[in-house]
Amino acid sequence: MENKVQEAIAEIQRGTAEIIDIERIEKLITRYFQTGENFYVKAGFDPTAPDLHLGHTVLIQKLAAFQKYGGIVQFLIGDFTATIGDPTGKSETRKVLSEEQVLQNAQSYKEQVFKILDESKTEVKFNSTWLKELGTAGLISLASNLTVARMLERDDFSKRYASNTPIAVSEFTYPLLQGYDSVAMDTDIELGGTDQKFNLLMGRTLQKAYNCKKQQAVLMMPILEGLDGVQKMSKSLGNYIGVTDEAFDMFGKVLSISDELMWRYYELLSTKSLKEIEELKDGVENGSIHPKDAKDSLAIEIVDRYHGIGAGQKAKEEFKKVFAKKDIPTDIDEYTFEGEIWIGQALVDSKLVPSTSQARRDIKAGAVKLNQEKVTDDKLNLSKGEYILQKGKKSFAKITIN
Amino acid sequence: MENKVQEAIAEIQRGTAEIIDIERIEKLITRYFQTGENFYVKAGFDPTAPDLHLGHTVLIQKLAAFQKYGGIVQFLIGDFTATIGDPTGKSETRKVLSEEQVLQNAQSYKEQVFKILDESKTEVKFNSTWLKELGTAGLISLASNLTVARMLERDDFSKRYASNTPIAVSEFTYPLLQGYDSVAMDTDIELGGTDQKFNLLMGRTLQKAYNCKKQQAVLMMPILEGLDGVQKMSKSLGNYIGVTDEAFDMFGKVLSISDELMWRYYELLSTKSLKEIEELKDGVENGSIHPKDAKDSLAIEIVDRYHGIGAGQKAKEEFKKVFAKKDIPTDIDEYTFEGEIWIGQALVDSKLVPSTSQARRDIKAGAVKLNQEKVTDDKLNLSKGEYILQKGKKSFAKITIN
Repeated sequence: MENKVQEAIAEIQRGTAEIIDIERIEKLITRYFQTGENFYVKAGFDPTAPDLHLGHTVLIQKLAAFQKYGGIVQFLIGDFTATIGDPTGKSETRKVLSEEQVLQNAQSYKEQVFKILDESKTEVKFNSTWLKELGTAGLISLASNLTVARMLERDDFSKRYASNTPIAVSEFTYPLLQGYDSVAMDTDIELGGTDQKFNLLMGRTLQKAYNCKKQQAVLMMPILEGLDGVQKMSKSLGNYIGVTDEAFDMFGKVLSISDELMWRYYELLSTKSLKEIEELKDGVENGSIHPKDAKDSLAIEIVDRYHGIGAGQKAKEEFKKVFAKKDIPTDIDEYTFEGEIWIGQALVDSKLVPSTSQARRDIKAGAVKLNQEKVTDDKLNLSKGEYILQKGKKSFAKITIN
Repeated sequence: MENKVQEAIAEIQRGTAEIIDIERIEKLITRYFQTGENFYVKAGFDPTAPDLHLGHTVLIQKLAAFQKYGGIVQFLIGDFTATIGDPTGKSETRKVLSEEQVLQNAQSYKEQVFKILDESKTEVKFNSTWLKELGTAGLISLASNLTVARMLERDDFSKRYASNTPIAVSEFTYPLLQGYDSVAMDTDIELGGTDQKFNLLMGRTLQKAYNCKKQQAVLMMPILEGLDGVQKMSKSLGNYIGVTDEAFDMFGKVLSISDELMWRYYELLSTKSLKEIEELKDGVENGSIHPKDAKDSLAIEIVDRYHGIGAGQKAKEEFKKVFAKKDIPTDIDEYTFEGEIWIGQALVDSKLVPSTSQARRDIKAGAVKLNQEKVTDDKLNLSKGEYILQKGKKSFAKITIN
């Protein structure tokens, strides 16, 4: 029994950046093992961006870990803030979502996260439910629980205040609303990124102010590095693996990371036990396992998660077929483009042909291949992905389109 | 015509501490004289304290002046803030008013202010009407119009922030709500004390932010000195003349002020024209008018205002009767007490008798008079007011109880 709890705690702690009140988490898990009583684990998501990448799944997988030990996940969609738009006035383009759009985005979230989370142990919540009801008086009363000085201690606020960068009074309400969500949902544990520490602690403060019986524990996950291994994984930086990426692309992207980053991904993204990962690492170090095989194994696990068991192996074989055929040289020139590109332009830009008119003629003559397949449509546009472009028998280029 | 406007403006400017956008006020009054079109003049009142003293009436009389030149008064009762209580947590005892109490207090206000204001040109408003409706989202959106830095420029906030005295985040909403009242009521001019400058200007700022056609002018009245001529008139300092004071007390209190303060009261409280006051002043200076007569005249005007025409003259005569009878010496000792006092104690404290037991005996013997009337009840308690206490034929004391 005690062993089981210790194992659970080890898994909960794995990869975390910081935990506040681990004793509380231990108590909740122990109680679950003893009596079967559940507890609530909250994480908030922005309804404007339902396209998840693996950076987001670090947190979601930690939620899934809690589900194994009695946690009921409160998957909170912050629709309230989305319907009032961005109050700072800085990003005029942030759109105000309609209720319909919010529900659509919630549906899209569900399709993605239930590949990781156990649906039967997940409650999808919308904070507009209680925040609308709060009203003018309720919000003022909520705001009476915190001082201006304390608010200005938040890292980004203090920096902006010191540098005379405007902070709208309304921005002070966001941490308060996030904290109040925990009051309204009676949350036991809240998960978030390290950059959310101030807001996560607000839940504890407000649960106390509102005389709740609980004060939530807080668990912070680190920010996952993107494919480059340096910057945080983000869509705008293009260094991401999307949850809805095609199996082939997903596989290729994992293979492209450095060996060092591979171990980081193992820690934060794999469901392999720490012991298994340790063995793998030892194997690579003593030469009994090739690093390429360890990376294949991680890629297969990830592809399987989002495309079903077997999809990883299939992607691996496909990848092999494209890149490992004898007639493709291993050291070909690589080109990276942004956005969609017309195949004629791609042929010119990757220096396989001197002009777009020549490109059209070559396509018509059947001399152009894309991923080993003859191209017949000279109007073809290439969208995001990795391609091997070939002209004639000997000219190759590897093309990545972000 | 131009003369009429200039006269009106002179009356509006009389006694003011500061006016912002006098041009706008001049335009509104000119338009009224030309077309008869009205405009809106707002002032806010706290629903928790409907007992007005002359310090409050300085502002109300200015509102009345506007009514002569086309102003419709928006008599705003800030019931919304009262129903949410004091958010700073500093004065725990500030009570949250029920809706019923708010209406009762509003009724009490009306009874008092319609002695000064023209009821047909007054709209009594409650800000809960539109502030409740604002809701969580509306309040956040309102708060997006101001920066934290700008808010901390408000004099009292900046002092408290600098001295590490807590400021609740909720306190930032008050200036915003006051400003929003002007948006909701489409106010043309707002009146307030000099200590309200920041909040009064908020109305202008927010009318602009909400794309109103108007931006209100602001007129600030000075703080009226109390009977001592030094500190501001206030109930807690006891140096006030209450609107509901008895005619006799009111008269006596005006008589008690210094000659210098009398001119100040003439400027801020009398409805006599500036010209008339100037003539009175000249008369006193060249000796043709006795200062006591000028003071009587002011006292009569004020008593008449709150107790009906004729009440001032009656109070004057009563006062004369009590204090001017031959058998009361003019230079008697004066004593001031705080709160209710038992007559026996008053006799001892004013040195008319050596002990309270002697006081009881003298009362029983019919040797004690209060305001010329024989005292028969030796348990009598004296409450707030001015009295002449007499023992025997020759011992007198003037007693003031605050």
